[in-house]
Amino acid sequence: MRILGIDPGLRNLGWGIVEAANGRLRHVANGVCHSGTGELATRLLELHRQLTAILVEHRPETAAVEQTFVNKDAVATLKLGQARAVALLVPASFGLDVGEYAPNKVKKTVVGVGHADKRQVEHMVRMQLPGVQIAGPDASDALAVAICHAFYMRAPRVPLAEAGA
Amino acid sequence: MRILGIDPGLRNLGWGIVEAANGRLRHVANGVCHSGTGELATRLLELHRQLTAILVEHRPETAAVEQTFVNKDAVATLKLGQARAVALLVPASFGLDVGEYAPNKVKKTVVGVGHADKRQVEHMVRMQLPGVQIAGPDASDALAVAICHAFYMRAPRVPLAEAGA
Repeated sequence: MRILGIDPGLRNLGWGIVEAANGRLRHVANGVCHSGTGELATRLLELHRQLTAILVEHRPETAAVEQTFVNKDAVATLKLGQARAVALLVPASFGLDVGEYAPNKVKKTVVGVGHADKRQVEHMVRMQLPGVQIAGPDASDALAVAICHAFYMRAPRVPLAEAGA
Repeated sequence: MRILGIDPGLRNLGWGIVEAANGRLRHVANGVCHSGTGELATRLLELHRQLTAILVEHRPETAAVEQTFVNKDAVATLKLGQARAVALLVPASFGLDVGEYAPNKVKKTVVGVGHADKRQVEHMVRMQLPGVQIAGPDASDALAVAICHAFYMRAPRVPLAEAGA
């Protein structure tokens, strides 16, 4: 199962693809989409185009997006919402189910604690995907989202006694 | 010049199309896109599909989106941002320039005061577009955005003395 993880942002949208098979993970690709400095509509279109090209090239079978929240101000939240719309819309337009995970859930799943910093996340991503070349912090976060999604997709098969742990 | 106005919302996205020629306005069409009650990705895709169909059918040459703000809470702002992304993205993907207008600017342009309520806006839309059948308050607001855009596209031709008024 090929999984696309996305860390949405209007300026930098991180993406990462992993393959999960027989309980093992393999790195496929990762990168960062940049929206440039034009008008908002043009920037969103640019993200849409780049993300579409990634789906065409790598053909993931499922996707997950980080439910990032900013509470700085309404303008920042609105921008994030716009980037997240693209992140949700493009995989859905390829017929993929799109999971959403809160940042704390991603960290807790990948690092073991909900308040891990970016370096810890990157460290654990490298442990899970040996030899991976990471395009930057946003790509690292996106790979963490993909790893998290791989875990929760497996979860239904975990015996009930363990699932409660 | 055929102008598409959009009043973005995740649940109800209003749209209206007017034609401006020789300083006169003509109503073309208006309506409301509904995103249903599914998952967020599916709802955004649904808005994207409906809005794309409207552009294919009516072929507007320029577009404008209301810069709506909600300050209720971050979740509401995020949702609005997601709907606005679709409103900006779809016309941009057809190669259209997409203007953005604050709600107060739309009201001030169409009604004459920035704090007009929805009924006043609808009344003035009906005055500008005689005989128009309006699909609802969101469609009325969308037509107001289109009328506002028609005005500001004409504005550069207004003599400077008047423009300052």
